[in-house]
Amino acid sequence: MPHFFSVGAQQRSHLMRQTPQCFWLTGLSGSGKSTLANALEVRLHGLGYSTYLLDGDNVRHSLNADLGFSAADRAENIRRLAQVARLMVDAGLVVLVSAISPFAADRVRARALFAPGQFVEVFVDTPLAVCEARDVKGLYARARRGELKEFTGIDSPYEAPERAEVHLHGVPLIDDAVDVLMTHVASARASS
Amino acid sequence: MPHFFSVGAQQRSHLMRQTPQCFWLTGLSGSGKSTLANALEVRLHGLGYSTYLLDGDNVRHSLNADLGFSAADRAENIRRLAQVARLMVDAGLVVLVSAISPFAADRVRARALFAPGQFVEVFVDTPLAVCEARDVKGLYARARRGELKEFTGIDSPYEAPERAEVHLHGVPLIDDAVDVLMTHVASARASS
Repeated sequence: MPHFFSVGAQQRSHLMRQTPQCFWLTGLSGSGKSTLANALEVRLHGLGYSTYLLDGDNVRHSLNADLGFSAADRAENIRRLAQVARLMVDAGLVVLVSAISPFAADRVRARALFAPGQFVEVFVDTPLAVCEARDVKGLYARARRGELKEFTGIDSPYEAPERAEVHLHGVPLIDDAVDVLMTHVASARASS
Repeated sequence: MPHFFSVGAQQRSHLMRQTPQCFWLTGLSGSGKSTLANALEVRLHGLGYSTYLLDGDNVRHSLNADLGFSAADRAENIRRLAQVARLMVDAGLVVLVSAISPFAADRVRARALFAPGQFVEVFVDTPLAVCEARDVKGLYARARRGELKEFTGIDSPYEAPERAEVHLHGVPLIDDAVDVLMTHVASARASS
């Protein structure tokens, strides 16, 4: 039986004077998720929001360092990211998750951890051709040469979200995309 | 290669006007760790600190729901708690972890994730006889009947901390114990 504690989510978010939320950015490798998450965090932080950015790649070096890229490990990677995001939302933070998260079932499970309205799915829908042309990390080239197996968009599917709260088509300017995301922030703060 | 982001730990803790830390409460089942952690969180929250309490038992129902009680799973349980605590300290919070964490090696690994001074190990050194007499969850009785194997203190060792920042002997009054812990809080806040 879980312990119940005196200081709850409501007390914590009241103290931080903000409504905790999770922005979940999904899209292909190279779609610009992390760049956008960073820009959103800069905007939020500047307005006085307490935030945290959980980057799928970074967390693979720490909490998820034990996981590989098998189907089971990929699902577990997303499960843990979602659980940590949930704990951080419980702590009162506005959490930004940036992770390819290509499978709809994994994203549905992530959403199910949150209260209605807390989970904002953001589909960073940059065309594969654009992502591959950028190929910042050289991963698409390696995948095309067959050095990386089951690479999302090449030989592993990306299951596009069907009910994302935000669908960013094409390649919007970062500032414009942040403007759109800011309309989904639940609590208004005066600039401080 | 990890992504680096614009808003860092220092900016976040500056915004929260507090020094993030991890209080790690270790001790036998029934030693009073969770009660003490709760009382510490109440005190901190009342003073305006943004906190989070990671309770080992509770996290076993969420992030660590996939783990059992084998030696490997117990180590993994502690590893993940420590990694999540580290992420939350990075987010700016004062994090309280309550977990039996009986093995010194696991606690050393946890400590190693934090900057010097950020990790405050608290040994809740309640005698086994007291914990067993309380037996709030009936676990000691089950362990004595052989229904629970490798139960800490019964047929699995508790490796007492040798360099804990705080060593609470016997059964101090909760308020007194909280007073002691408050002297290890890095940032002073005026009562608000």
